[in-house]
Amino acid sequence: MSFQIPPIEPVDPNRIEHYQNRLDRLTKPRKSLGRLEEIAARYAAIRHPRIELTRKTIFTFAADHGVAAEGVSLYPSEVTAQMVYNFLRGGAAINVLCRHYGIRNVVVDVGVNHDFDQAEGLVRRKIAPGTCSLIREPAMTRQQAEQALQVGLDLAAEHAGQGHIFGSGEMGIGNTTASSAIFSALTGLDANLVTGVGTGIGEQQRRRKADLVRRAVATRQADTSDPIDVLCKLGGFEIGAIAGLALGAASHRIPVVVDGFISTAGALLALRLAPHAGDYLFFSHCSFERGHATLLDHLGVRPLLDLELRLGEGTGAAIGIDLVSAAVKLMTEMATFEEAKVTKARERGARD
Amino acid sequence: MSFQIPPIEPVDPNRIEHYQNRLDRLTKPRKSLGRLEEIAARYAAIRHPRIELTRKTIFTFAADHGVAAEGVSLYPSEVTAQMVYNFLRGGAAINVLCRHYGIRNVVVDVGVNHDFDQAEGLVRRKIAPGTCSLIREPAMTRQQAEQALQVGLDLAAEHAGQGHIFGSGEMGIGNTTASSAIFSALTGLDANLVTGVGTGIGEQQRRRKADLVRRAVATRQADTSDPIDVLCKLGGFEIGAIAGLALGAASHRIPVVVDGFISTAGALLALRLAPHAGDYLFFSHCSFERGHATLLDHLGVRPLLDLELRLGEGTGAAIGIDLVSAAVKLMTEMATFEEAKVTKARERGARD
Repeated sequence: MSFQIPPIEPVDPNRIEHYQNRLDRLTKPRKSLGRLEEIAARYAAIRHPRIELTRKTIFTFAADHGVAAEGVSLYPSEVTAQMVYNFLRGGAAINVLCRHYGIRNVVVDVGVNHDFDQAEGLVRRKIAPGTCSLIREPAMTRQQAEQALQVGLDLAAEHAGQGHIFGSGEMGIGNTTASSAIFSALTGLDANLVTGVGTGIGEQQRRRKADLVRRAVATRQADTSDPIDVLCKLGGFEIGAIAGLALGAASHRIPVVVDGFISTAGALLALRLAPHAGDYLFFSHCSFERGHATLLDHLGVRPLLDLELRLGEGTGAAIGIDLVSAAVKLMTEMATFEEAKVTKARERGARD
Repeated sequence: MSFQIPPIEPVDPNRIEHYQNRLDRLTKPRKSLGRLEEIAARYAAIRHPRIELTRKTIFTFAADHGVAAEGVSLYPSEVTAQMVYNFLRGGAAINVLCRHYGIRNVVVDVGVNHDFDQAEGLVRRKIAPGTCSLIREPAMTRQQAEQALQVGLDLAAEHAGQGHIFGSGEMGIGNTTASSAIFSALTGLDANLVTGVGTGIGEQQRRRKADLVRRAVATRQADTSDPIDVLCKLGGFEIGAIAGLALGAASHRIPVVVDGFISTAGALLALRLAPHAGDYLFFSHCSFERGHATLLDHLGVRPLLDLELRLGEGTGAAIGIDLVSAAVKLMTEMATFEEAKVTKARERGARD
């Protein structure tokens, strides 16, 4: 059975307006909470009528990349599996942030080149022990690409009942290279504009990496009207899973807070497969990774944060989820002008 | 007795480097947590050797402004006192955020035009029931300006033993006008560049407000080499208290997370009185208020957030404090490469 895009309803703009009106009755100058009002109203419109936000889950999808053998990263492929163990023991950045914010972290092996055996707490959805090198051949088969999407879709369905909001995250040595290739193929932007330092390579190595990306995009000849073909040729099992998660979450009316560069590649695939999925996405931050700002502009979205993060794992998504959570509490817990007996503005201002 | 600037030690750059080295041993690419690493290292250098961050306090200073009678705001002066009651009952934005982040909120009447009688939970430090209109006469006497600074200084000392980090906040109808005047006087920037819509006035009213600010700055002739004279002529009891808080906190080696536009006016006064106080300040966000970005640039500081907030109360500081808190936890709770048995980078990258 081939992959089916689930039905996704657009978010009703009247509902967003309804919640904005509610925000306007609270004891503050109109729209003075800026983007927090925007995200509270959209979150509530998505979740209407049950708008509490207490159950939060970040999915960290891990997978290996054949392209890592081309020396595109400062770290060898083994680090992907080592970091998965670090996640499971609670020692990574994403663990610290999830504890701080009260977010559940689900770690998924979607294609790590390692046998995790009995490792506790790991969700096993391995498609293959890593992709092929997109420089030399298609990163995966079409069937594997559909499987990767299905992993995200299935996890969204499994967690839909216990989740109010999801976040995306990933771990995979070599995955900025795959993401850059997907971006370049789908947007037409030159590889040099969307290829960054990843884990921290020097400028000379970055240029070489950009050349590899440019060559891979030219050689693989992905059909850009078919996002699954792009995923298949340029790869990333975790990138496919993130795309599937975005589609599945949207079909269950669950917002997804998108992490950084690599998660944006997954989000872009989801948007090309089902544009309405965008109504359910919150872009958490602008990564330090070269090209991310350009890509967010290209998507017409504004990230919530710009903290020069470039770690992945879901770290930016964790901070973003907590901002959404704070915004929703402001909407539901603040007193109205009537309740607090505060005099209203005598007239409307310029922004109205 | 006149106001004395407390002794403030600069933060030792070697200590910052010491903590950056510690961050570099954690399981993440070097500096990949971006600005979170910056703030964790500086926080730890300030608090060294006891770097836990659990006790957080935001001071919300409330005061009235004679200039409110000139029609510079959408709201009448009564709203200052009404909002103080709202703070005390827990219905305002700052209350919701302080609950969300586990921050203590201390509400201080430093000059509200209202008798709060027995209102519970209010810290009473009223200097006068509001300032005079800076358009017509000096906002306050020199003695009152020193009293305002002393209020902040005293509160910093009182809370130093139980606090790891402070945040600034304020409430006072008319206080963007006073802040714009202070900014224009101290930086030489034209009033039009640093006068915004405040609570949400229209563009015509904003221009009129900017004209009032320009005239007040020209007429009051504050001695800009004497920050206390600037505070005295152009006013704001709460602005003086925020400046005093920044100085007092720095002298006790407690970082202060600065809220938005009005708090930045207080911070600027503190910096002019004691430049080393800047080592202890974290600027939480760039306000939507016109001129704030320019002023932060002028101060050579980069805010952590840009969420188009323009509410005050300490709302941006609350979000900022939690970011510092998350950053410190990342530094103290993440595993090192050795502990997690993760392979280190094979070489150093371009940013190093």
